[in-house]
Amino acid sequence: MAHSIAIIGASGYTGAELIRLIATHPNMHITALAANSKAGLPMAQVFPNLRHLDLPDLVTWEQIDYASIDLCFCALPHKTSQDVISKLPRDLKIVDLSADFRLRDPDAYAKWYGNPHTASDVQAEAVYGLTEFNRSEIAKARVVAGTGCNAATGQYILRPLIEAGVIDLDDIILDLKCAVSGAGRSLKENLLHAELSEGYNAYAVGGTHRHLGEFDQELSQIAGREVKIQFTPHLVPANRGILATAYLKGDAEKIGAALMAAYEQEPFIQVLPFGETPSTHHVRGSNFCHIGWTADRIEGRTIVVAGLDNLTKGSSGQALQNANLMLGEEETAGLMLVPCFP
Amino acid sequence: MAHSIAIIGASGYTGAELIRLIATHPNMHITALAANSKAGLPMAQVFPNLRHLDLPDLVTWEQIDYASIDLCFCALPHKTSQDVISKLPRDLKIVDLSADFRLRDPDAYAKWYGNPHTASDVQAEAVYGLTEFNRSEIAKARVVAGTGCNAATGQYILRPLIEAGVIDLDDIILDLKCAVSGAGRSLKENLLHAELSEGYNAYAVGGTHRHLGEFDQELSQIAGREVKIQFTPHLVPANRGILATAYLKGDAEKIGAALMAAYEQEPFIQVLPFGETPSTHHVRGSNFCHIGWTADRIEGRTIVVAGLDNLTKGSSGQALQNANLMLGEEETAGLMLVPCFP
Amino acid sequence: MAHSIAIIGASGYTGAELIRLIATHPNMHITALAANSKAGLPMAQVFPNLRHLDLPDLVTWEQIDYASIDLCFCALPHKTSQDVISKLPRDLKIVDLSADFRLRDPDAYAKWYGNPHTASDVQAEAVYGLTEFNRSEIAKARVVAGTGCNAATGQYILRPLIEAGVIDLDDIILDLKCAVSGAGRSLKENLLHAELSEGYNAYAVGGTHRHLGEFDQELSQIAGREVKIQFTPHLVPANRGILATAYLKGDAEKIGAALMAAYEQEPFIQVLPFGETPSTHHVRGSNFCHIGWTADRIEGRTIVVAGLDNLTKGSSGQALQNANLMLGEEETAGLMLVPCFP
Amino acid sequence: MAHSIAIIGASGYTGAELIRLIATHPNMHITALAANSKAGLPMAQVFPNLRHLDLPDLVTWEQIDYASIDLCFCALPHKTSQDVISKLPRDLKIVDLSADFRLRDPDAYAKWYGNPHTASDVQAEAVYGLTEFNRSEIAKARVVAGTGCNAATGQYILRPLIEAGVIDLDDIILDLKCAVSGAGRSLKENLLHAELSEGYNAYAVGGTHRHLGEFDQELSQIAGREVKIQFTPHLVPANRGILATAYLKGDAEKIGAALMAAYEQEPFIQVLPFGETPSTHHVRGSNFCHIGWTADRIEGRTIVVAGLDNLTKGSSGQALQNANLMLGEEETAGLMLVPCFP
Repeated sequence: MAHSIAIIGASGYTGAELIRLIATHPNMHITALAANSKAGLPMAQVFPNLRHLDLPDLVTWEQIDYASIDLCFCALPHKTSQDVISKLPRDLKIVDLSADFRLRDPDAYAKWYGNPHTASDVQAEAVYGLTEFNRSEIAKARVVAGTGCNAATGQYILRPLIEAGVIDLDDIILDLKCAVSGAGRSLKENLLHAELSEGYNAYAVGGTHRHLGEFDQELSQIAGREVKIQFTPHLVPANRGILATAYLKGDAEKIGAALMAAYEQEPFIQVLPFGETPSTHHVRGSNFCHIGWTADRIEGRTIVVAGLDNLTKGSSGQALQNANLMLGEEETAGLMLVPCFP
Repeated sequence: MAHSIAIIGASGYTGAELIRLIATHPNMHITALAANSKAGLPMAQVFPNLRHLDLPDLVTWEQIDYASIDLCFCALPHKTSQDVISKLPRDLKIVDLSADFRLRDPDAYAKWYGNPHTASDVQAEAVYGLTEFNRSEIAKARVVAGTGCNAATGQYILRPLIEAGVIDLDDIILDLKCAVSGAGRSLKENLLHAELSEGYNAYAVGGTHRHLGEFDQELSQIAGREVKIQFTPHLVPANRGILATAYLKGDAEKIGAALMAAYEQEPFIQVLPFGETPSTHHVRGSNFCHIGWTADRIEGRTIVVAGLDNLTKGSSGQALQNANLMLGEEETAGLMLVPCFP
Repeated sequence: MAHSIAIIGASGYTGAELIRLIATHPNMHITALAANSKAGLPMAQVFPNLRHLDLPDLVTWEQIDYASIDLCFCALPHKTSQDVISKLPRDLKIVDLSADFRLRDPDAYAKWYGNPHTASDVQAEAVYGLTEFNRSEIAKARVVAGTGCNAATGQYILRPLIEAGVIDLDDIILDLKCAVSGAGRSLKENLLHAELSEGYNAYAVGGTHRHLGEFDQELSQIAGREVKIQFTPHLVPANRGILATAYLKGDAEKIGAALMAAYEQEPFIQVLPFGETPSTHHVRGSNFCHIGWTADRIEGRTIVVAGLDNLTKGSSGQALQNANLMLGEEETAGLMLVPCFP
Repeated sequence: MAHSIAIIGASGYTGAELIRLIATHPNMHITALAANSKAGLPMAQVFPNLRHLDLPDLVTWEQIDYASIDLCFCALPHKTSQDVISKLPRDLKIVDLSADFRLRDPDAYAKWYGNPHTASDVQAEAVYGLTEFNRSEIAKARVVAGTGCNAATGQYILRPLIEAGVIDLDDIILDLKCAVSGAGRSLKENLLHAELSEGYNAYAVGGTHRHLGEFDQELSQIAGREVKIQFTPHLVPANRGILATAYLKGDAEKIGAALMAAYEQEPFIQVLPFGETPSTHHVRGSNFCHIGWTADRIEGRTIVVAGLDNLTKGSSGQALQNANLMLGEEETAGLMLVPCFP
């Protein structure tokens, strides 16, 4: 029988992306959709691309009967997310897509997000949701914290290399190019078509982007020592996609071997043949991540480039992959959509 | 058991789109892929978005063992298509995506396409593939001729209205806005990003676009008299989508009623609530067509707007829908992908 | 000596476009820039593309010393514009870019804009600013009302044809494709890059767009009888440009001759050789308007297509052209920028 | 009296950009335009955006009467350029926009471009055209070699820092994001709108991009030792613009001070206030370069970001700036166009 699913925060892009994916899932049924600011509206009005689906109208999250829900996705903004989740039943399985349960240290959370954490009891239960590296914990978890989309992309490059000990931990540079849907459906001047199209720019330069909290936590844990990377995101005029270019000190062959070994059995992470480089267009709308690596002309330096779709593999696809594990479903169910090119 | 499928012309956009759709089809298996100019290459090299699929390498169409094929999609350019299809086994089921078998009158073909038709025997077998209006013939056909993508969009508006007798047949204007993938993967200056992006223009102005041959044939047949419409396509800076705006003389309520009656049971054609208008973004990557209608401020005039994805509903999705009918499959199999927005 | 110029509403796109143009004007000096919501800010912060210019900081419009100003551009939203302009000195030359003084009939204004006009005394002085057709009145005017950008594009097609009596006045259809900057720098969901890019749609369908008020007024006056056109605008994913496709009943040769006669001496309106069609990309960032015409395959029907840049010829360029006339400057001063392609 | 100007290679984007700029130059007149593949055509047909200009029709370069020419721009592909220039009169002033005369060492040329240099006598005369750093030599030169557009952008960041000795020379990383017009008007699959739009990718990864030849030559010369940088270009879906992000080891305050000192008097290079970052959209269509710098959270590391328009400051604008110096004109003549935003 199909699992009964609720989505809180269904009026944003990650909420809509969850619905798009779940619509092709053989064993999930969407029972409730919540978005407090748009409660009462049919989804066809909020996302006309979902018009043909038989979906419940939007309600407030308080109106959902959680007793009938097997798993709840929470796609709210950070801070709101912890407020809501702390009030949900304590036996409800939750996949949270916000930043609220990613950082295990409440001080780190307060530092990066500017507000104290008010649900540290829930935090204590939460498992970090980078599926490929936390499968067994995720399968057993009640609450899974979805990763940042930039943090996911960078970690797909860096985790196997740190684990294999093949790169210099003190000189890791990550230059990211991010499409605009990563910023959500928010009304900001720099997200307007007229401002963004035909232009691109760096932002959060100098190590101020919040996803660095995740990088610090995860990479240091793997390395067994503090690892601080340099990370500069750039906004580019496209709707979907993250391309991460990593500048690393280490031998290209060893780096390539570590990547191939790590991802050989993975259904979604594809290491490209030597010398090929990924394009975000080739993973658009899918749960795949393409990774390419190349030796630099300077001895001992290697460039690794990874591309994924921020809304799918970087967010809602990851969330569904984790939900599949939590519900005992096939991990790839609902996620084998072919990238939509062109 | 899965049907064994071949695709000839697999290195173009409609070929790749067929593969994208068939990859999620429960009962089809791609046995052979042909593209003579790229024979020998793996598909991952020609379309990196298909990298994760287990696909046969490209061969020439002559190399395919047609005895093992249940149905062959032919996604070649016109003229080449008739040459190739006339040499294929005469009992092979074929869905042709080219223009070669759309026009029943060889003189009309020669007039619009500039070359004489050399496979009129095959033409005599071909059924015009606008699924919603030719289901039973398509189900029995050996050869189905896919429609032009513009012709499909326009006919979704016009056919029910002509059949219902609710519009003036002498004053039909169709203004189309077409994304660039409709022109295929061809190396033409006006298709370059630098030329097209940030600009849009009319082309084939004045009634010279070849899809008018289809409009003339089909609309006249329905009307039982000659119907000639005005049709001006425009190229807009987007990858996928056709938006057709029809300026009609006729009563809006009758027109709306005729559209709703025609499409009430259709899985893919969605008539929008009164006053809403479609966006190509809301059907992107899917087999859906959205249609909206509005009364003009001038009494007795109505505007109908239809949007679909030229590569899916306008071409490869239609082809798969027809193939499903020809093979006795569920008509919607492999086609319920949710539009990818944003 | 340079004319002293003020711009009220300098934080929007038309304000910034005025500054871009005036920066190359030989005889104008920007003395004051007002934008009440951003008063106190340097322009470099509001529009970083103007960083290198030596511009005054933004003030409120009340802070400007109008005694020192020779001409004031007013680029405010409608309604606000009439409030402000009615409080400005009654001998100040003003070019208004809003909709507030375009309609001579206060009832028509109230009908199309939904609020009563509160400055009908100023309205009585205002000259309709479609330069090519009102030169002598504009040169003598104290207040010039800039036209709507869509209304300008359509009138460049229709005015000469109505004057020459070569088209059927009861069957005029104008299908417009508009870039997003025409909607201004406003924070609306449908103007976000993620919503607009890769999609396009009709809006204000059925004769509800406010620029119809201008069409009705101007075309009826020329014709000496009521003329009501059909006009459907579409939003396309580009930053600048309007492309108008007119479907007309009339002889193509006569229509072409009327256009060529009307614009033969015009510096900015270029009638293309027979059969060529304009692209908005070819007039981007300039004050030029390209017009092409073609006979339809149906006898007695003609298609005329016009393209211009909504921010330049459709708005700020027109305003500067009018200001040049009002100040006795060369009409083309500051306006001969070459279109920026690609 | 106006200088008489010829442009060879006028059918490409840099040729057209030269014409766009020269059209507003007070003291230049275009006497001849050559493009052998399109000889005989009017420019209005090759670049409709130049339609209003009174330009000579295209001829072959052999047909130009060089005796009447004061300065010749050569915008041909590399290799062709040296063939042609070696046959031009030896007293003709030339600004070459190709790669053929940038590298002083013929072996370096052969290594990076794959063919031997056949005009080393002309090479011996050529001055490297990065205006801000070679003014006096350029003013006296007969032949000036325009720089690579990527090489220019990177050098605007790096030259002052190497001269000031404030960065580690062994650890310079340059991550570039380049718009598509940098690849020229060439018919390549990856430059099609359908391929590029909605995607971005790295190319020439690992130190294989030809502009590295220029970086090696110039930076080593300044440093007085070999300097080899890492440089990875990325293609992004936009028409104009280069954004360079430099990852440097050095103190941010010293780096900022060195940049400000170097460019304080420069008309086109604008160092942004601390913490601001450039966008390519803010310099679009202009000769300006915006540079921002920020300290990384890791002590002793600094990020510098520079943005310019590849066709203007990166190519044709630079060429005109150099021509102004060579002809004794005001260096900024024809170059003060305001960036076109949005």
